[in-house]
Amino acid sequence: MSVVEARSGEAVGQEIEIRGWVRTRRDSKGGFSFIEVNDGSCLSNLQIVADAALENYQTEITSLSVGSSIVAQGVLQASQGQGQATELAATSVRLLGDAPSDFPLQKKRHSFEKLREWAHLRPRTNAFGAVARVRNCLAYSIHQFFQEERFYYVNTPIITASDCEGAGQMFRVTTLPLDQVPLKDGKVDFAKDFFGKASYLTVSGQLEGEIYATSLGRCYTFGPTFRAENSHTSRHLSEFWMIEPEAAFFDLSDNMALAERFIKRLLTDVLSKCAEDMKFFDERIQPGVLAALTTVKEKPFQHMSYTEAVDILKNSGEKFEYAIDWGADLQAEHERYLTEKHVQGPLILHDYPKSIKPFYMRCNEDDRTVAAMDVLVPQVGEIIGGSQREERLDILLERMQQLGLSQEEYWWYVDLRKYGSVPHSGFGLGFERLVQWVTGMTNIRDCIPFPRTPGSAEF
Amino acid sequence: MSVVEARSGEAVGQEIEIRGWVRTRRDSKGGFSFIEVNDGSCLSNLQIVADAALENYQTEITSLSVGSSIVAQGVLQASQGQGQATELAATSVRLLGDAPSDFPLQKKRHSFEKLREWAHLRPRTNAFGAVARVRNCLAYSIHQFFQEERFYYVNTPIITASDCEGAGQMFRVTTLPLDQVPLKDGKVDFAKDFFGKASYLTVSGQLEGEIYATSLGRCYTFGPTFRAENSHTSRHLSEFWMIEPEAAFFDLSDNMALAERFIKRLLTDVLSKCAEDMKFFDERIQPGVLAALTTVKEKPFQHMSYTEAVDILKNSGEKFEYAIDWGADLQAEHERYLTEKHVQGPLILHDYPKSIKPFYMRCNEDDRTVAAMDVLVPQVGEIIGGSQREERLDILLERMQQLGLSQEEYWWYVDLRKYGSVPHSGFGLGFERLVQWVTGMTNIRDCIPFPRTPGSAEF
Repeated sequence: MSVVEARSGEAVGQEIEIRGWVRTRRDSKGGFSFIEVNDGSCLSNLQIVADAALENYQTEITSLSVGSSIVAQGVLQASQGQGQATELAATSVRLLGDAPSDFPLQKKRHSFEKLREWAHLRPRTNAFGAVARVRNCLAYSIHQFFQEERFYYVNTPIITASDCEGAGQMFRVTTLPLDQVPLKDGKVDFAKDFFGKASYLTVSGQLEGEIYATSLGRCYTFGPTFRAENSHTSRHLSEFWMIEPEAAFFDLSDNMALAERFIKRLLTDVLSKCAEDMKFFDERIQPGVLAALTTVKEKPFQHMSYTEAVDILKNSGEKFEYAIDWGADLQAEHERYLTEKHVQGPLILHDYPKSIKPFYMRCNEDDRTVAAMDVLVPQVGEIIGGSQREERLDILLERMQQLGLSQEEYWWYVDLRKYGSVPHSGFGLGFERLVQWVTGMTNIRDCIPFPRTPGSAEF
Repeated sequence: MSVVEARSGEAVGQEIEIRGWVRTRRDSKGGFSFIEVNDGSCLSNLQIVADAALENYQTEITSLSVGSSIVAQGVLQASQGQGQATELAATSVRLLGDAPSDFPLQKKRHSFEKLREWAHLRPRTNAFGAVARVRNCLAYSIHQFFQEERFYYVNTPIITASDCEGAGQMFRVTTLPLDQVPLKDGKVDFAKDFFGKASYLTVSGQLEGEIYATSLGRCYTFGPTFRAENSHTSRHLSEFWMIEPEAAFFDLSDNMALAERFIKRLLTDVLSKCAEDMKFFDERIQPGVLAALTTVKEKPFQHMSYTEAVDILKNSGEKFEYAIDWGADLQAEHERYLTEKHVQGPLILHDYPKSIKPFYMRCNEDDRTVAAMDVLVPQVGEIIGGSQREERLDILLERMQQLGLSQEEYWWYVDLRKYGSVPHSGFGLGFERLVQWVTGMTNIRDCIPFPRTPGSAEF
């Protein structure tokens, strides 16, 4: 039986077996040992009460160390202790694997920085166990949401010869011998590389997602994406997971409504299914996170055009580090002012200047804005970015030409506009940013099991 | 409304709107056009009946071409035609995007090889629409199964500096300039590369999965993995998705039971939820596939040791291309004989010779076999491979030494045995092999949206 089942109390009075890792052991003078055991099924431990009368009490139980693994049998009882509903009155406690005194996770607290060096052990701590459970809950909730909305899960390629319009710097993928790279006319001869051409790790599955949206109607990706930028911030990873839904016949307003239903559903699930873990984050990691998420869950998302937003910022009387003028990209400080102070809740900004957005976004009638949208939430700023896509062949080609993009390279993307083109829209959500927002963890490196950042690919 | 909803018949008599792509159009002499529309929500089309009385009948409807996108409104009616329950009596049919006559997917059939060059359009065909829906169904079923069994979804790293004990050749990931690779003492200076050391694309998430199993109890991965082998077969991809569950306190027998529940659950879901698509595969792609899958779904998985299997093969009287002797790896022909002819159903082989299996598999008492298992199914052979893992520190270290593996490089994997080690087990399933088996598609390149193979990374 798992600890979470044992703690539910349904099995009180029954003989059960518990298997897990010792978090603490305390021996009373009265000839009892109290062993707190965790098995990862929930944040809380189950207390095992071992009587000195047990056969191996002196030889084994009184020397059980922090981090060792045990299997215990006994009768589950309603507990007299505070803060726990049940405890196990052991009839047997057996050591499976001990943990010598150099086990790093002793009772002493360690910084999250230090724990990153022990990424193989940190999921045995309260905080990282909770992050892992919340992450799992959100991932499954994402699949459930899209399946219920009849979106198909599609796996877009990881290795690619396209570059999704320079969304970021890319990692090269190669099998060429680096100490003897074949050259031709003084340049690298990629014809000799594995794929016969230069290839990279994807920065986005959106363009390929559009292929499936314009054939199956609705699809979503949920897979790893990569950025080779040399960023050392608490908000950037070199490898992260992204969710990118794409839907035919959705205009920008359908897209905004989808994003709102999506975020509300994720929050509803995580607040109800991970209540204990979320309470932990609220108490120990970021006080107020529960209230902040509840606000977003309950408040209707306000809509505001970029142009309105610029006016509001200009008239706000606030001192911003970066000046704001129509045509400039909004900075985090601007986004946070709008969502935290101005609307005090979730906000969708839409219709951004064409000049600061990628080629595939749909041009509006005014010819200076595109049908883009960003979802902003308090404390974090942008959490989702998306748009209606340009489905008109002539306008797309003109825009590509203006930006110097090769029609030949994007031949298949152009084809989607040539053959049975339809209006369609989609957005992207960075999964670790979502986990960071929901848990309130300070550093995004603590929101993914094995973070990849410049200089770091251990494990 | 989607075509699948319209075809269900629940909305007969109602005004509805349908949006999709024209598969065929036929004009009757009586002044009607019959337009077959597909929107990807199911294999079948919905027939739209457009009356010559419609305003744009002559100008637009009678020239609607294959592949164009339309939106149609009208009243859903019970159909008099054969093979369709409902049809739409249109009050309006409007062209969204036309498809010129060079649209590649005209009525003429194309080979799957040819369609691979049009991977951006092939999901608009019956076969690839069906593959996409089955793939989606299986992916979601995998998540549902593991979530219900209380396994946590965990994302193991894609970029890695470890190599999971040479499970295959690896792609290098780098940001070094290939035409000017920095050298130090005549060797590539990986200290100057992005991660400060040589790094690769993962071949398996198992070792990292073990980290989460030995902290959270049960976990599974479902993510992309890579092989840089120069394989040009119908069963190999350079990029494929893999599912790898790992569970603490599971021995080999728990592991085999998990694999059996897992496969039966996937087949149950796909046969019921994708009944129409599966009927298509049975009729058009691989006659008999339904019966074959139903057998595996219903028959208990037999268990047989490798040693027994070798005896059976030796005494079979069959002529095999590869000789069989205790200690040699089984070939596909041997596996297929065992599952197709000998047991005539699903089979789990277990306890393979130590010498042909990786270092992490648990040594048996006999000291010449390990607690490995392979799940074999008729027509395909091996579909799952797994094992109980070696949890005993001394035996693991001895085995690593024998195989020349560096204890320093695997320091964190060794730590899992040093601190609170527990028995644990897991297995791996290649997702595209599963899709190939379930759909009966001949080539695995047709079982993933955008196949990556030597010389090919288009789209």
